[in-house]
Amino acid sequence: MTPDCTPVFTIARRVQAMLDVEVALAEAQAEVGVIPAASVAPIRAAARVERVDLHALAAEAVEAGNLLIPLVRHLTRDVASFDAVAAGHVHLGATSQDVIDTALVLELRDGIADITKSLDRAASGAATLARRHTLTPIAGRTWLQQATPTTFGAKAAGWLDGLERARTRLAAVPCDLQLGGATGTLFSLGPHGPAVARALAARLGLGVADIAWHTERSRFAEAAAALGLACGVLGKIGRDLTLLAQTEVGEVAEAPAPGRGGSSSMPHKRNPVRAVRAVAAALQAPGLVATMFAAMVQEHERAAGAWQSEWDTLPRLATLTADAATAIVEALADLAVDTARMRAALDAAGGVACAEGLVAALTPALGRATAHTLVEAACARALHDGQSLAAVATADAQIVGTLGASGIAAALDAATFAEAAAPGVQRVLARWHREKE
Amino acid sequence: MTPDCTPVFTIARRVQAMLDVEVALAEAQAEVGVIPAASVAPIRAAARVERVDLHALAAEAVEAGNLLIPLVRHLTRDVASFDAVAAGHVHLGATSQDVIDTALVLELRDGIADITKSLDRAASGAATLARRHTLTPIAGRTWLQQATPTTFGAKAAGWLDGLERARTRLAAVPCDLQLGGATGTLFSLGPHGPAVARALAARLGLGVADIAWHTERSRFAEAAAALGLACGVLGKIGRDLTLLAQTEVGEVAEAPAPGRGGSSSMPHKRNPVRAVRAVAAALQAPGLVATMFAAMVQEHERAAGAWQSEWDTLPRLATLTADAATAIVEALADLAVDTARMRAALDAAGGVACAEGLVAALTPALGRATAHTLVEAACARALHDGQSLAAVATADAQIVGTLGASGIAAALDAATFAEAAAPGVQRVLARWHREKE
Amino acid sequence: MTPDCTPVFTIARRVQAMLDVEVALAEAQAEVGVIPAASVAPIRAAARVERVDLHALAAEAVEAGNLLIPLVRHLTRDVASFDAVAAGHVHLGATSQDVIDTALVLELRDGIADITKSLDRAASGAATLARRHTLTPIAGRTWLQQATPTTFGAKAAGWLDGLERARTRLAAVPCDLQLGGATGTLFSLGPHGPAVARALAARLGLGVADIAWHTERSRFAEAAAALGLACGVLGKIGRDLTLLAQTEVGEVAEAPAPGRGGSSSMPHKRNPVRAVRAVAAALQAPGLVATMFAAMVQEHERAAGAWQSEWDTLPRLATLTADAATAIVEALADLAVDTARMRAALDAAGGVACAEGLVAALTPALGRATAHTLVEAACARALHDGQSLAAVATADAQIVGTLGASGIAAALDAATFAEAAAPGVQRVLARWHREKE
Amino acid sequence: MTPDCTPVFTIARRVQAMLDVEVALAEAQAEVGVIPAASVAPIRAAARVERVDLHALAAEAVEAGNLLIPLVRHLTRDVASFDAVAAGHVHLGATSQDVIDTALVLELRDGIADITKSLDRAASGAATLARRHTLTPIAGRTWLQQATPTTFGAKAAGWLDGLERARTRLAAVPCDLQLGGATGTLFSLGPHGPAVARALAARLGLGVADIAWHTERSRFAEAAAALGLACGVLGKIGRDLTLLAQTEVGEVAEAPAPGRGGSSSMPHKRNPVRAVRAVAAALQAPGLVATMFAAMVQEHERAAGAWQSEWDTLPRLATLTADAATAIVEALADLAVDTARMRAALDAAGGVACAEGLVAALTPALGRATAHTLVEAACARALHDGQSLAAVATADAQIVGTLGASGIAAALDAATFAEAAAPGVQRVLARWHREKE
Repeated sequence: MTPDCTPVFTIARRVQAMLDVEVALAEAQAEVGVIPAASVAPIRAAARVERVDLHALAAEAVEAGNLLIPLVRHLTRDVASFDAVAAGHVHLGATSQDVIDTALVLELRDGIADITKSLDRAASGAATLARRHTLTPIAGRTWLQQATPTTFGAKAAGWLDGLERARTRLAAVPCDLQLGGATGTLFSLGPHGPAVARALAARLGLGVADIAWHTERSRFAEAAAALGLACGVLGKIGRDLTLLAQTEVGEVAEAPAPGRGGSSSMPHKRNPVRAVRAVAAALQAPGLVATMFAAMVQEHERAAGAWQSEWDTLPRLATLTADAATAIVEALADLAVDTARMRAALDAAGGVACAEGLVAALTPALGRATAHTLVEAACARALHDGQSLAAVATADAQIVGTLGASGIAAALDAATFAEAAAPGVQRVLARWHREKE
Repeated sequence: MTPDCTPVFTIARRVQAMLDVEVALAEAQAEVGVIPAASVAPIRAAARVERVDLHALAAEAVEAGNLLIPLVRHLTRDVASFDAVAAGHVHLGATSQDVIDTALVLELRDGIADITKSLDRAASGAATLARRHTLTPIAGRTWLQQATPTTFGAKAAGWLDGLERARTRLAAVPCDLQLGGATGTLFSLGPHGPAVARALAARLGLGVADIAWHTERSRFAEAAAALGLACGVLGKIGRDLTLLAQTEVGEVAEAPAPGRGGSSSMPHKRNPVRAVRAVAAALQAPGLVATMFAAMVQEHERAAGAWQSEWDTLPRLATLTADAATAIVEALADLAVDTARMRAALDAAGGVACAEGLVAALTPALGRATAHTLVEAACARALHDGQSLAAVATADAQIVGTLGASGIAAALDAATFAEAAAPGVQRVLARWHREKE
Repeated sequence: MTPDCTPVFTIARRVQAMLDVEVALAEAQAEVGVIPAASVAPIRAAARVERVDLHALAAEAVEAGNLLIPLVRHLTRDVASFDAVAAGHVHLGATSQDVIDTALVLELRDGIADITKSLDRAASGAATLARRHTLTPIAGRTWLQQATPTTFGAKAAGWLDGLERARTRLAAVPCDLQLGGATGTLFSLGPHGPAVARALAARLGLGVADIAWHTERSRFAEAAAALGLACGVLGKIGRDLTLLAQTEVGEVAEAPAPGRGGSSSMPHKRNPVRAVRAVAAALQAPGLVATMFAAMVQEHERAAGAWQSEWDTLPRLATLTADAATAIVEALADLAVDTARMRAALDAAGGVACAEGLVAALTPALGRATAHTLVEAACARALHDGQSLAAVATADAQIVGTLGASGIAAALDAATFAEAAAPGVQRVLARWHREKE
Repeated sequence: MTPDCTPVFTIARRVQAMLDVEVALAEAQAEVGVIPAASVAPIRAAARVERVDLHALAAEAVEAGNLLIPLVRHLTRDVASFDAVAAGHVHLGATSQDVIDTALVLELRDGIADITKSLDRAASGAATLARRHTLTPIAGRTWLQQATPTTFGAKAAGWLDGLERARTRLAAVPCDLQLGGATGTLFSLGPHGPAVARALAARLGLGVADIAWHTERSRFAEAAAALGLACGVLGKIGRDLTLLAQTEVGEVAEAPAPGRGGSSSMPHKRNPVRAVRAVAAALQAPGLVATMFAAMVQEHERAAGAWQSEWDTLPRLATLTADAATAIVEALADLAVDTARMRAALDAAGGVACAEGLVAALTPALGRATAHTLVEAACARALHDGQSLAAVATADAQIVGTLGASGIAAALDAATFAEAAAPGVQRVLARWHREKE
């Protein structure tokens, strides 16, 4: 829903970011001595989005080809109303794309910072679940069928592992200044070009590129990939939560609250609305990532179409990722976990989900092949007769003769499976602790 | 640029469309006798977007899971302030998705109508060019290399052909009412369900579906495909225009105007800004189409993620398509066509682009193999010596002996190639005339 | 899995399709009188894929830019070994793309025919289930939560509806001849061009285009969309099947067979392997559809990159669709349906899934608002106390006073919901019967 | 073309990779003491793809759900024919996905190694061009219009920059062992699980994951992103080459060779077939990347559809990338560069492309605004009268009075622009030298 609504504010934020770049450019040029220091204050005073008629700007942008050309026109006129000399120092030596790209880098950096905070909080939520439920048995499920048991802690540790990987990828996204002038050579700044670039990058807290990247778009493709990766990780968590929250499974539920996930007609509904926001984001991200990768093929020094296709795509991807991250933070923070239903699912269907434990226990004495054959037959009997596997095994002379009744019970105990799952959980938690510090 | 800015209005339009559906539902139910006629007026009076706090609505929607749940809550309260009985007749029997889907169908239908008008105008522009330039020779270009000549009219007829196909596909997009209640059975309207559905569809001018399509999303996938197809057709035109407008080609140019496609630093620039809008749209459409196709896999009676992923994707695709269509209408309407440069390109490089004409003229007398070998050698000589192919051919005893000097000139005349291109142009124009009527 | 393996054969089939086009071209030209009838037989004799060294061909194709150029070279040499005159009549007037595109149209038409047959068989399977289970109650499920009941027949009718729509879209895919020569004008066939095109199209059973479509690719984009649509429809069915087959739901199962869907370690597993093939196809299709839409932006008369990107993408999409269709045919043909578990799911959790029935029954007497409030409270009590909703309602003075015990039972009877679902099922079945005839 | 043909070999290679994993697993288990050392040799002897009937395997895989299940069945039977005991030690404790994923990691690692070598060679080619042409003026081109001049060296340095970034991303792709058993806990290996995993990873040269990543797919998504990034970088180079090679531009050409890029009908054609292979790959990659990102949403412990959708997608993406890289290596290695035509393009249209130089030269004396106005007028006159900008400027009293005739010539000299471009080129070359060492 957020994506529907935030664009109301987005264009203002984007224009302000562009104006911020123009101010920093003037400051950097004053620092280097390309323009007089006195020109900075008038530019700074005028460079405020509140002074811009955004609807007029948008209309002019259609004809001009981008937002920045009419914005510079407006800014220059506005500065001129204070100080004619300073007006001559607006946007000096830069090309539209320098400012548009750099403003997008600033937006992206802020977006990544927010998303990273959310991923950290989501990781914290997953870590809490992983620690608390390290030994809580739950049915493992493969192909959407119950399989050998694992633990709810292992599931949460898998989520944590993904969240950590997503955070790491986002942290590696390069945030570099774009400043190349008309065709990437900074010709119009003459010998001052490199010094202005360094000063501007320093002011904005951005990296300095070796060469203009007007049509070498791997930075933005990397950003898109990192955002898409985060959506994928969050979507996987969301998918698991919706599956675990199914009425027939009921092992987790999103915390209820007035106005959350209800239905006007069905009083018993508790829709997993947060998990679904993450799933919906993960469904939209791949198409947007694809657009950013397709946009890498840009012509010559500045592109005719591909650059333009990035303008809304990357911000939209960042917005979706931020929303998905918030949703998972909230979903994990107060998740209701029903360990009794987890256990009950393992006991259903005669407990055949634990059959692998019996095979393992019998193997040392009987060999693996014989053990497997015996257990397979016992499972079939249990399912056919509606008995528990434990009862069938105890009635089987060879099995009970090998393990005894207590051995059978131990072999089928979900706790045995839980122990196998613990080391992985602990490794993931340990890495998370190390990386947090 | 438009897409950046229109979302300011989009959410209001979307909410109004939802309110329109609620009003029509009440009207249909009064018509069928499910609710009293007196309940309609209060609902109609309240169902205006100006009465809704959109920011509050958006915030509540996050928790509720969609926009409609808090909107119905608001509408019901608002109606209740006029008429308590009518408040009980708001949104009767419908589920959120019924209203959200139907509102999206209404938006889509309007969008398609606008786009179709633009496609018609673009087709008209392409038809004018096709007719006017049916016999204007231009270099054919394959793999971005000059090849056998064609005509500018044939190029424009190709555009027209695509525009017509796009229009036809859009006209076939199904616009059906969604009305199924909680799980698609319209249970809560009892025996009145089918009659209410027919009455509501009639009021909204929509088709009646055989069965609820809450999770059978081929209608929206078809819409996405038709929109994506239009973007592809428009993007192909835009790509051709940008290539023809290259400084080194210069065969067409977008009409200049103050504030259009200029550059602050480079006074000689005339950027093809309209063509580029179409190219940029065509680069973004495939990812959005992919999202809509991916969203077809929806769970059970109503989905947990995929449905939600459609909400912004389909409107965004429609907005992009509308913008691309407008851009191409404008680009074609006043396109500057430089037939002299088209001709000059054919004469460059010794006129070897017309070599196939010489082969064709020699074949009856010499056989195709000999003709080809002779002409191949003549081309090589022309390119090597910087002479014209005509001059080399005239100096070649066998060629001139076969065709004479005037025969050589005729064979290399671009007009011959132009004649071959004419029938296709005429067929496309004829079909366009038929379909227009 | 099939996609992994069939490429072994694909290249041979593709080359044979190209050779078939060359033969039909010679036949058409003989018919029109462009080449002597005697040239046809030698070309036909040579045009067999067994005579081609496919590995050598593939290697040469890399340098040549496509498969057809070396194939024509080979074919011409091969024909020349029989008949030197006929060798001069190979591939006359055509360009590589004419043959490559037309061969792909032939492959596509065959693919669509196969897929259509499978969709018909899948529709038949879905229709059987829809008819048989028109009144079989099943939990409706929205957001993966149980909601108002529907019927298994309605679910199957939704699948049938989608399959029918997919079949209809595939039937509308245009299959037109491509024949334009070097730059789309058929110049080198002189006045015979149109007649040759008509004769060739008639021989191949293809439509005649008004103008060459070398760079107007909406035909292939439509084909991709229709295939993607089919994948989406099949994937939705596959997704529902996997969800219904979950151990915890168990309402359907794929028929067991030796070697199908088992697990070496877990004797109790029965993986829904067929449904999963359809889901996997539906996950891959959107990206391939996107590629075909992106490929619409083709330069001038023949493209430099986009055309080439279609060669493997469209066949791969068709192969995936065919596999998904086969998988769903098989899955539906012998699906095990457990109506007892469907019923049991409705009775679980106190039967609150049927609460909407109680609201509907109380509304005439008490008004909708009061009815809703009463039932909401009863549901809460039932869930909290672990009682059935029927029992709670019967203990509630106002509810029992209004409906009586038998009225409560009737209101909560899943059969009531099943009746509401029946008309939609019947409409879909009726349409399917009409369209089959 | 290559992608068409290599699948012939791909399935064999994939099966052998799976067999290699099974052998290494047995070796690791023998090393740890889980199975006797004597069991390794029979497994190793049987684990050869030549011993497998691939067509039968593929057919069984359809029913089984994946290739590995019938492969293990075959391998076990085959080992049993030598050594019944060893047959019991095949695939011990592993699940199908362990072997399929790990085999795919091995394929991917090899693919990345090959691609990296090609990227290095392409970088070497780009570096040579960047160094040789550091000061070779060429028209800068933005929006496909000539703009301020740059150098061909700067263009090549931009390519080099991208190639280096692509190489760096590929080097960071994680290559980790997958070994988790049925549900990721390695239960069936009991206490030996971690030791077996470490030993197996060491044998295969892979990393050890903290926890099974059966449904945490960010590793493969990262691989897809890195491959897609490389395709984007290569496609950008290919796009520039096709544009520079246009007949009307003619600044570069792919080296001619028999059978390369010719046309049967048009003797003068020299198609840029290598560049086009890269462009075509870059058009296909985004859709495949999107599929891999969409596939991240995997259910529970092992997925029902998304995992299966990766099997062909990732190898296909790697194959495309490898082909694109080879194509660019070849295209750059013997690229024909026509510096005279580069220079001629700058002199065309009166040399207005250099107008920015005149503005820069006049600014110190006249102020930027006056300088710009004067030069704008001079450009307009030059274009209108068909004169050179130098001539018009020399005839303008104020311009010539400020700079003198020689000052005008210097200001318009493309060499001035070339100097501005040099530092960026040198920075990129220096980084490349550093990273190579």
